[in-house]
Amino acid sequence: MNRLSRLVVLAASASMLAAPALAQDAQVIRTAEQLRDRAMAGSGAYSIVEAITTRFGPRPAGTASERAAAEWGVGYLRNEGFDNVRLQDFPLSAWSRGQESVEIVGRHAQPLAAVGLGGGQATPPEGIEAEAVVFETWQGLLDAPAGSLTGKIAVVLQDTIRAQDGRGYGSSSVMRFQGPTEAAARGAVGYVLRSLGTHDHRFPHTGATRVGEGTVPAFAISPPDADQIRRLVALNEGPIRLRLKSTAAFEAPGRSQNVIAEVRGRERPDEIITIGGHLDSWDQGTGAIDDAAGIAITTAALKLIADLPQAPRRTIRVVWWGAEEVSQPAPAQGLAGARAYAQSIEGEVARHVAISESDFGAGRVYGLSLPGGQADSDFQKAAMRVLTPIGVLWNPAPARGGGPDTGPSVALGVPAFQLAQDGTDYFDVHHTADDVIDRIDPKAMDQNVAAWAALLWLMADSDIDFRAGAPTP
Amino acid sequence: MNRLSRLVVLAASASMLAAPALAQDAQVIRTAEQLRDRAMAGSGAYSIVEAITTRFGPRPAGTASERAAAEWGVGYLRNEGFDNVRLQDFPLSAWSRGQESVEIVGRHAQPLAAVGLGGGQATPPEGIEAEAVVFETWQGLLDAPAGSLTGKIAVVLQDTIRAQDGRGYGSSSVMRFQGPTEAAARGAVGYVLRSLGTHDHRFPHTGATRVGEGTVPAFAISPPDADQIRRLVALNEGPIRLRLKSTAAFEAPGRSQNVIAEVRGRERPDEIITIGGHLDSWDQGTGAIDDAAGIAITTAALKLIADLPQAPRRTIRVVWWGAEEVSQPAPAQGLAGARAYAQSIEGEVARHVAISESDFGAGRVYGLSLPGGQADSDFQKAAMRVLTPIGVLWNPAPARGGGPDTGPSVALGVPAFQLAQDGTDYFDVHHTADDVIDRIDPKAMDQNVAAWAALLWLMADSDIDFRAGAPTP
Repeated sequence: MNRLSRLVVLAASASMLAAPALAQDAQVIRTAEQLRDRAMAGSGAYSIVEAITTRFGPRPAGTASERAAAEWGVGYLRNEGFDNVRLQDFPLSAWSRGQESVEIVGRHAQPLAAVGLGGGQATPPEGIEAEAVVFETWQGLLDAPAGSLTGKIAVVLQDTIRAQDGRGYGSSSVMRFQGPTEAAARGAVGYVLRSLGTHDHRFPHTGATRVGEGTVPAFAISPPDADQIRRLVALNEGPIRLRLKSTAAFEAPGRSQNVIAEVRGRERPDEIITIGGHLDSWDQGTGAIDDAAGIAITTAALKLIADLPQAPRRTIRVVWWGAEEVSQPAPAQGLAGARAYAQSIEGEVARHVAISESDFGAGRVYGLSLPGGQADSDFQKAAMRVLTPIGVLWNPAPARGGGPDTGPSVALGVPAFQLAQDGTDYFDVHHTADDVIDRIDPKAMDQNVAAWAALLWLMADSDIDFRAGAPTP
Repeated sequence: MNRLSRLVVLAASASMLAAPALAQDAQVIRTAEQLRDRAMAGSGAYSIVEAITTRFGPRPAGTASERAAAEWGVGYLRNEGFDNVRLQDFPLSAWSRGQESVEIVGRHAQPLAAVGLGGGQATPPEGIEAEAVVFETWQGLLDAPAGSLTGKIAVVLQDTIRAQDGRGYGSSSVMRFQGPTEAAARGAVGYVLRSLGTHDHRFPHTGATRVGEGTVPAFAISPPDADQIRRLVALNEGPIRLRLKSTAAFEAPGRSQNVIAEVRGRERPDEIITIGGHLDSWDQGTGAIDDAAGIAITTAALKLIADLPQAPRRTIRVVWWGAEEVSQPAPAQGLAGARAYAQSIEGEVARHVAISESDFGAGRVYGLSLPGGQADSDFQKAAMRVLTPIGVLWNPAPARGGGPDTGPSVALGVPAFQLAQDGTDYFDVHHTADDVIDRIDPKAMDQNVAAWAALLWLMADSDIDFRAGAPTP
């Protein structure tokens, strides 16, 4: 940047500071700034993560632990003074991994640090023992001809790339979800995947895989174990034989639930902004970053608003979605909690102003995206005035929703917004046994709450229609 | 330091550089420096760790994996040109952990990341379920009166302090070795320990506990799980109930073995300097830092000496000790490989010049200690002249031996020396599933080899009697 352009930028900054954006009342902006500053000084979000993860540990979808956490949540939210606190039940089959193991047998026999993929199927009791066919890349597996893996175990070693916005995982998660299907289609009897993680520690990552016909038992090995396979291949001393064992199964049909609470709007109570996170977790860790953090951030933000002397004009609703993680046997689908929530608002979509989820860990917020059409709007300028001082950039691309649980509602036409978190380290921990509260920096959570509380106030204490400027979907 | 004293130090350094220590031949020192520099440029030690950990994975004492690694070692050492390569068998009962679990039951039910202590006993098949009595400190358990833990599970949460020289572990390892005995003596039916680790990740640490009558089933939980127990206690919502399960057992009497190889001395072949590491590992990781690293460092150092045009005056022997890790049922004792080795030299102790082991990971060497009486000797000055440039300090306290496997030989009167490694991070990994080659920095291994090769040359190409100046034991 040369000196002249630097001066122009400085002048622009100064004028923005001097005059609030037109469509936003100065008092509204001041209140948003106060909420922001209050959160930065200590938001209480960390203690919500602490309560959920300490009391309930892992909370797999459809289990007694998830249910107990939800029921505790109802009491907690009522006690904190939220309105209209309730459970929203829906049917779900819990998945349980049982006992499982992956080992090299024969030459170079050794156990591997492995975990079954969520929703995966059991092996026969004696296990599946077969020769491994090792692919360095996912494309390598896709390029294998039909029948070329008959009786073999497909092993894919492709690494997941570290990226601030999670695009590494975004591009590699197909290896987990579709891998067992693609392997089966080529005749394989089992599937082993390098964990979708960005670290080099001995934590294997689980996560949902496709459920149903035409798949095979499937496991993820830790990154160091994937490198171990690579070294064994490089020895070039004959085939590698693996034995896979799992007693995984879906349990009898049961239920899961969303927890819903609100701060009722003072002027337009029927206009609803929905935020939240998901309460269920994988079974290995205690789901601190995935996603007690998201619940805590959004709930603490709404609590700061609830504690203001005056309610916002619109209603803000927080949802602790259930059953985000696991797929379901056909004909059911995944995201059962999000689908149940969307179904419940299907007849009233026009009243839903916007929706977003916090489901990308506990790292700091660094980006805001809004529904299409908001670029350069007065609202956007007001939002950036409040958020820029805590390190949030404007992302001009229209928001796609902050997390998976917004998907079914967005599909109905509810506008999405997103506060993007720094996920550089997220996949070091995500879906592993190491997803525990020790991974969370309380100050980063405060910054998240600051961004959410301030933005929510601007959205809720306004009459902006976020559909208005959006291009037709 | 003031200006004058700085000048004195500089002058002293200059004079040391100018004139080699008297009792050490200048050519001997030059060769030691060449060995040092050759190792720093690439020692080959990392590839030895890679071969052992890749080919054999975990190598628990007395197992087929430990045996296979030892047999491979014989071939490797012969192929590298070492003399007198052989196996030294001894009886051993392998210990196998079987299936195990630790969980909180009842209120706040959740699984914990836990591992059985090595040599520990099984629970009944249905497990042991009892109320936890939680002690913040080891002293707290010791202070509990006899009978006060009747029917309870003792839980000790004391943390292990990080320290460069490992003294944190030194002071806390009694909690693991004696804990089940002390708990049993007070009536407890089980024992749970905070892992003896310095990290906050979800890796529980195993390690040997006392075997025999008067103990109870015993487990270590990961540091985050210990903090979870602490948070549950702080909730003050009633007792914590635990369920412990283990099918651990000692297998039928079998064998383990030491691998022994030498570079024969050219003038005094009957005078022997013994170095080495241990080949066995715990079952969770692949024993990269504990202790393939020690084997690799000492073997690579000796290989550099073997490759010199002229052998050293004395014989240098490398031992890959077996069965360092696990205790044994009475009347046998632990350190079975080290005892077998000591027994084999019992009639020839006078010919054993010195002994040391590398068994503290793969961190850089930062300290040298020699047998008592060597402070300010010409040998010590020569050694420090060679080692100071690679970051090694003189430690004036007499050496106690570099690792557990030297103990039985030192007890016979063999002088000990030690190259102390920086263990600041050692207990982040030690005895966990994360003890894999990914934790090793090849350059730090090269520095270790440099220190060992140079020091060994000085010791072996001399006629110094390290008993001579030592105080009477």
